[in-house]
This record gives sequence, structure tokens and C-alpha cells, in this order.
Amino acid sequence: MPAKNKYYSNTLKPIKMLYPHALPLLTDLYELTMAYGYWKLGMADKEAVFHLFFRKKPFGGQFAIAAGLDNVLDFLEHFRYSASDLTYLQQLQGSDGKALFEEEFLDYLSHFTCRCDIDAMPEGTPVFPYEPLLRVQGPLLHAQLLESPLLNSINFQTLIATKAARICFAAGSDPVIEFGMRRAQGPNGALAASRAAYIGGCSATSNVLAGKIYGIPVKGTHAHSWIMAFESEEASFEAYAEVMPNNCVFLVDTYDTIQGVKNALVVAQKMRKKGVEMLGVRLDSGDLAQLSMQVRKLLDRAGFEKAQIMASNELDEHIIQDLKHQGAQINSWGVGTHLVTGRDQSALDGVYKLSALKDEGGKWHYKVKISEQLVKVTNPGVHQVRRYWDDSGNCADMLFDVHSIVPKEPLCIDPLDPTRLQKFSSDMRYKDLLVPIVRRGESVYKRPSLQEIRKKTLQELSHFPQEMRRFLNPQPYFFGLEKSLHDTKLRLIQEI
Amino acid sequence: MPAKNKYYSNTLKPIKMLYPHALPLLTDLYELTMAYGYWKLGMADKEAVFHLFFRKKPFGGQFAIAAGLDNVLDFLEHFRYSASDLTYLQQLQGSDGKALFEEEFLDYLSHFTCRCDIDAMPEGTPVFPYEPLLRVQGPLLHAQLLESPLLNSINFQTLIATKAARICFAAGSDPVIEFGMRRAQGPNGALAASRAAYIGGCSATSNVLAGKIYGIPVKGTHAHSWIMAFESEEASFEAYAEVMPNNCVFLVDTYDTIQGVKNALVVAQKMRKKGVEMLGVRLDSGDLAQLSMQVRKLLDRAGFEKAQIMASNELDEHIIQDLKHQGAQINSWGVGTHLVTGRDQSALDGVYKLSALKDEGGKWHYKVKISEQLVKVTNPGVHQVRRYWDDSGNCADMLFDVHSIVPKEPLCIDPLDPTRLQKFSSDMRYKDLLVPIVRRGESVYKRPSLQEIRKKTLQELSHFPQEMRRFLNPQPYFFGLEKSLHDTKLRLIQEI
Repeated sequence: MPAKNKYYSNTLKPIKMLYPHALPLLTDLYELTMAYGYWKLGMADKEAVFHLFFRKKPFGGQFAIAAGLDNVLDFLEHFRYSASDLTYLQQLQGSDGKALFEEEFLDYLSHFTCRCDIDAMPEGTPVFPYEPLLRVQGPLLHAQLLESPLLNSINFQTLIATKAARICFAAGSDPVIEFGMRRAQGPNGALAASRAAYIGGCSATSNVLAGKIYGIPVKGTHAHSWIMAFESEEASFEAYAEVMPNNCVFLVDTYDTIQGVKNALVVAQKMRKKGVEMLGVRLDSGDLAQLSMQVRKLLDRAGFEKAQIMASNELDEHIIQDLKHQGAQINSWGVGTHLVTGRDQSALDGVYKLSALKDEGGKWHYKVKISEQLVKVTNPGVHQVRRYWDDSGNCADMLFDVHSIVPKEPLCIDPLDPTRLQKFSSDMRYKDLLVPIVRRGESVYKRPSLQEIRKKTLQELSHFPQEMRRFLNPQPYFFGLEKSLHDTKLRLIQEI
Repeated sequence: MPAKNKYYSNTLKPIKMLYPHALPLLTDLYELTMAYGYWKLGMADKEAVFHLFFRKKPFGGQFAIAAGLDNVLDFLEHFRYSASDLTYLQQLQGSDGKALFEEEFLDYLSHFTCRCDIDAMPEGTPVFPYEPLLRVQGPLLHAQLLESPLLNSINFQTLIATKAARICFAAGSDPVIEFGMRRAQGPNGALAASRAAYIGGCSATSNVLAGKIYGIPVKGTHAHSWIMAFESEEASFEAYAEVMPNNCVFLVDTYDTIQGVKNALVVAQKMRKKGVEMLGVRLDSGDLAQLSMQVRKLLDRAGFEKAQIMASNELDEHIIQDLKHQGAQINSWGVGTHLVTGRDQSALDGVYKLSALKDEGGKWHYKVKISEQLVKVTNPGVHQVRRYWDDSGNCADMLFDVHSIVPKEPLCIDPLDPTRLQKFSSDMRYKDLLVPIVRRGESVYKRPSLQEIRKKTLQELSHFPQEMRRFLNPQPYFFGLEKSLHDTKLRLIQEI
């Protein structure tokens, strides 16, 4: 018999799953070759600042939902090179067949502990292009080594939380259930997607492990194989109702959807006599608009007005919105592939860029990377994002340099279109979005629960105009560089 | 000092990373509710057959490359429910607030070991729609529980191996290096993608952990941040050459690509005097066609004819092919996002369908799922795939039922277009693609090394006509149901 101990009493912590061991080699080789270079040249401890941000608005919308920070903290907590990691690095060779790394460097790594400071947007924060989701400040070598693992965690989870927020927006007050494990990138891909989908607003997942680890509600009833394992569809529904009367959502499209609903109703009537209510039916193919309306009528006429209609089958925010416009009678939405892979945009283009370096004399040197592509030009300095709002529903964001003095009514300039300016009135309220997370490698952050993060997403999004969230031509959101930062950037570009 | 022990001597086995623990809860809840139902109804041990196959040709091509089997074996090896798993399941509730599962069922799970037989296509096998990549035969409950974890592993890795094969086809004899970790779905997403990309034909990865675990060659030099950490680009190249002379590929586009190449050449000349050769340069933005030709001339004129030009920046098979058509002078290709996410197709639509069930009398009952969508109709029976070929380069595949007698010259019918028929001559050679992998839950398969799998992919693909591999209107590949299987299917559909 299984132990009667309380739920969670001996479950694994999330970290054990996503980072089962210290994974310092979860990185691109060039982080290590650069680290080696900095070490060798005596530059390892130069104070540096990097920002992690994305450039392209995901899914053609205006915003993203920050996610993945929790796993960054997990990574940092276990960031140690093991003997076997160093053995592996030891045998890597360059073009001449000689070792890529000196023994002394491997020795240095064997004692390495990350001493960076990290400020970040809490998970669940709406974020816009060019706004840092994280700012990392610390020894150049240390900050450099964080690039790949940070991007690996933040890019994906932010993408999926954003997709989820869009899908939930389309679904309105209907619950959205994440069904995507079978199409995700392995166990972690599935777990991280379930987590991020919940952050973005989903109500539940089919992924049992995500339920166990993260406490996300889990949902599921049966597949087509259940129906096919019986002599007839009706027999299969009857059998299911017998064994699991408190979880009866019948999948009705194995053979013919309308006939399937009729069979479900025969069983539901029998159940009712025994005092058990059918929860609803699930549609998984065919014309969901038309079918759901027909099915609603059948259910209502048979006296099952409270029975729910759930729909699945390659859904995304556009299809859900379109079905709703058509008057589809669907009460809950099962979304898989499109939600856990991003589908139309399968990656967030987050990057991690150096923006400031301190010299031996303690003076900051601001850095900018230029490019033929305007969107690829970086912003120099040490950044904070300030979000302004007022009671009339206006809101806008400013990027500023923490070493500068921000005027009471700052003027901000859109980095992609310098003719777009905005002055923020001193009447507006504001808050700074990057908060202290890590100091000298140690967490100083009280991690919120996943449920709290999800609540934050929903609350924060409710402060933005609905027009910003629509899918077609969403209302642009103003984001600008505080004028002195903008001037510094122009000066540095001219100097190059 | 790090230990001097031999490479791999104390590294982790891949399983430890991808399945750090037994992960029986890595499943959709409905697998467990169905399992409960089968158990409760005394159907748990009914002999069943499921097939895992995909329907839609990935990326608009003709074929996929089977991958992910190795992780299926890892999963099976550790398929045990822990006390904490059962504790979690114990507290799940139905709509009435009562437990979803009886204690006796959890007790059953606590003793559960999977006793299925699995036959599968070895990794690296080219596979076509509706062909099973795996056939699972065993007790209904056992086979059902494998659905979600099998799909999770096979769908993703097959997708990426396929994308890699396409990208490598476009690159011809040039090496393709996988750079995608920062855009993959977490640690496993990145690892599984690196593994699958190598199976599909890539030469190396930037992912150091994949190098350590799988023995894939790793590559990398420096990022823009390296350049920006120095007073000037030239100084940064010089510093890099000093510390890592045996790994000198200079990234030349931080400020201006052509000037960057000139700076690289200044350093390369100095290096040459010290007897060290620059390996090449990397272009990461701008017009890669035009720039690569200009850069080639600059390198050649300066006497660096052997220096390589590497390109990266949102590449995929179409862009690589187009660059080659334009005469781009690029020697190796770094591919990230598009490779590790699939981008234009972010998931393989693999499914796992019941096709046969044995009754108490030992008689097989074949099963078919019908649908308004022809593509969603399943094939009944117990399948094997036979691949025919002759010396003139003809090849085609037949799906047949292992319980039927296949004629010497079988007639085959395209399942999506019954007017397309093909008779296979007895002169053709053939082989059966599904091989025994697992018997009664135990592996009977000698797992090939990743290097052997990669070699298999390249060899197998070389047997198909090149026209089948092209991207625009690829030559269709014939796949048909052996006539008696086709007849059985039609009969079953009529019966429904």
C-alpha cells in the first residue's frame, strides 16, 4: 500500500527535475573559450554589466510575459564544475591537436563560484522589446559564463508564458488546459512548458509530473484508444462512467461526433438515475463551430444544460477567437502543440549583451554594438526599466541608466524611431521593474509560488488597455530611452 | 588540479541527464485514468497492439529520420512508480471531491513493471507518413501507459533529425554546426536537439554538455562581447590569438564586417610570423552572399587562401541553398534556432494508435478509428514495414499485416489515394524495417553508438534518389498498404 503521508511530503523539489545535477557545461563552448581568454589576460575580474533582452515582439503582439527566472536561480545554486566536467574539458583540442585549455585554468574552474549580482523582472511581468529581463553585474568572466544557461531558461519559458497569455486572452473567461507534452522537447521541454503555460494564465495541464512538481491542477479522461478497446462506443462510455463517475468527460468523435453525443447522452441518463452527473463531452475533430452548436442543442434538449463542451485539435489563439466570433458553444479549451512550441514563432530571440565595463581606476566604459540592422544596435550603460501609469489608463516604459540623474519629467525617445518622443508627466506614478535577485552569487530573493506568479500575470495584464492585447494591429506601447541615455548611445555610435 | 583520468572515465551516462529519475508520471493524466479503468474492468492484461506514426510530412519534404529510440529505452529501464509518485496520485480528486484512484489501484501501480514487446525502426532510418516508427504489443494497460512518454521522445528528436538532414543536404559537403542551445526548450530540449541534429548529419555542436555526454565534437570561439571588452576590435583579435592560437576563428561583424576582416588580417599576418595560422572568420549579420564573396577576395589577396569563412544568423535549409545558388563563399554553417526548434514546423504530429486487441479466446480483433478527415483514419492490424529497392534506383515501401501471407509480388495501395497502386516485382530486394527492441519489458537490442547512428542516416539517405530530397516539389515516394490489409481496413470502415 502506498504511504499515507501528506501530498508533497516526500516529493522532489522542482530543481531536481530541471537541473538534476550541477550543469556548468550546459553552455556554448565559446563562453568557456572567452572565459579562458579573460582569465589568461588577467581580465577575469573586471567589473562588467550584461543585459538579457529580446528584440522582436513575439507572435506579432506587443508584449511578452517574463518567465524562467526560477530555473536561473536553480542553475546558480548548483553552478560548480565536477571532476568529470574538468576531465572532459581537459581533453578538448585545438586545431594543432594540443589542449584547448591550460591545466591551471581548469584548476581555476574547479574552485569557481559565481559572484555576480542579478537584478531581474519577477516572473509574470509584462515586458517589451529592448527592456532587460535581467541585468547581470559582476566579474567579466563570471557574467560571461551565465549567458547560455540564462538564455536557455528565459527565452523558452518567456515565449510559452506569452503564448499562453494570448491564448487565454482569446478564451476570455473559459479555462484553457495545456495538453502539449507529446509535442514538447523532451521531459524538461514538457515540464518547462507546463510551468510557463500556467504562468501565462492556463488553468490546468495534462502533464502529471508538472502537477506533482509544481502543484498545477491536472486534467484528463480518456483517448480514442479507450473507445476502440470496447465492442461499441456506448459500451465504452458506460464502462468509463462505471469506473470513474467523478471524471466523466466523454470523447465523442471516434466514429461520428453527433452519434457519439447521442451515445454519451444515453449513458448520461443512466448515470443520472444513479445520482451521477456527466461533466461534459470533448470534441477533437471536425468543424468545431458548427458541431459545438449542434452538440449544445442536443445536450440542452436532453436536459443536460450544465454539461460542458470541451474542444481540442490544433487550437491556437486565432482559431479560438474565430470560433468564439462564430458563436461556438465551447466552455473549455485543450491546447497542445501551438502552446508548448510557440508554433508560428518557435523561439524568443532573446540575447545577452555586454553594455558596460569598469576600468582599473573604477571608471565605467559604456559599450555599444552597432550593426547594419538598426534592430541589432545595442543600448550602452547600466539599465533599469521604469513603468509609468496614471488613472486614465495611460502607461509607458522608460529605459534609463542607473548612474544618471533622471529628471522629474523625463523625455524619452523610441530607439527604433527617434521621431517618436514622449515626456512623462510628474503626475504619473511609476515603479522600477528590475528587482534585486542575487548578490555576489547568493539569492536575496524570496521566490514566489507558481500560483502567486500566475496571479501576478493576470493582475499586471489587467492594467494594460485591452487594445494592446488584441491580435490584429494591437495598439503600440510606448517604450523609450531616457534622453541622456539616448544621447550617450548616439555619441558612442559616432565615436565608432 | 583536475584528475588526469581518461576522457569519459567518470562522466555521467546520458540517461542520468535525460531521465534523471524514474519518470513514470511523465505522462498525460488520461493514460492513468484509462489504465485505472482497464484495471478496474479486468481488461488490464488483454493483449493489445499500438503503433506510433506521423501523418504529415515534415517541412514539406517527403521523409523523416527516425530518432529518439535510445531515450525510450532509458525511460523503460527506469519505469517504476515511487512512493512519492503514488502519494501524489492518491490525493488527486474527481468532480465530487473524492479520490480519483482507489488505493488498490495505487498498490497495483506500486508493483507495476512494464511487460511490453517493442519493435522499432533503428534511429537514423528514413521513414514516411503512416509507417510505424514503433510497434508496441503487450497488455493493454501497459501499452497504454507508454503513449505519452514515447511520443514525447520520438516526436521531437525525429523532427530535429529530419530538419538537420535537410539543412545538411542544402550545405552539401560543408560542415553544419548546431548552435541552438539558447533557443531550445531547457536543458533536455537542448541536449536532445544536439543529439538529434548529429543523427541527422550535423558535424558538431556548440553545446558542451552534449559533447561530454554524447561525444559530439564541440566548436566555439568568441562572441561580440569579447570584441567589446577591448579598446578596439584589432586589440581583441590580437588578444584572442595570443591566448588561443589553435582556435582562431574571428567574429568580424561587431562594428563593420569588411573593416573587421581587415583587422583580422592584420592579426593573422602577425600570427603567421609566429608560425600560427588563422583558421578563418565568422560572419553573423548583413548580406551573407555579397559579404562572403568580398571577404573571400580579401582573404585570398592577403595570402590566406585556406582560411575558412563561417556563416551564422537565422539560417535554414532554404537560405543556405539560396546563398549557394548566389555563389556565396561560405565553408561552414552555424545553425541554431531553426534547427533546434524546427521553426517552420515546430512539432512532428506523431500519434500512437490502438490497432488490434485479442479476446479471451485468443482471437485478434482489428481496430480502426474513422474520421471526417481522411488523413486521420487509422490502419488496423499488426504492422511491419517492408522497404523494396532494385539496382535501377527504384524504391518504395509497403505496410503489411504480420498475420497475413504476403504474396511474392504484392500489390500495394496508397492509403490517401486508392487510385495510386504499385505492384512490387519479385526481382526487387527488400528488408523489414521494424526490428525487435524490447521483449516483455527487457531490452533485447544492442544500442548503436551515436556515431554509428549518424553514419546509418547518411548511408540510408544516399540510397534514395536526390530528387526525393529536394525542397521544392520533391519527388513523391510510394508508400502503400498491401492489398489484403487495405481490404481489411475497408471492410472494418464499412462495418462501422
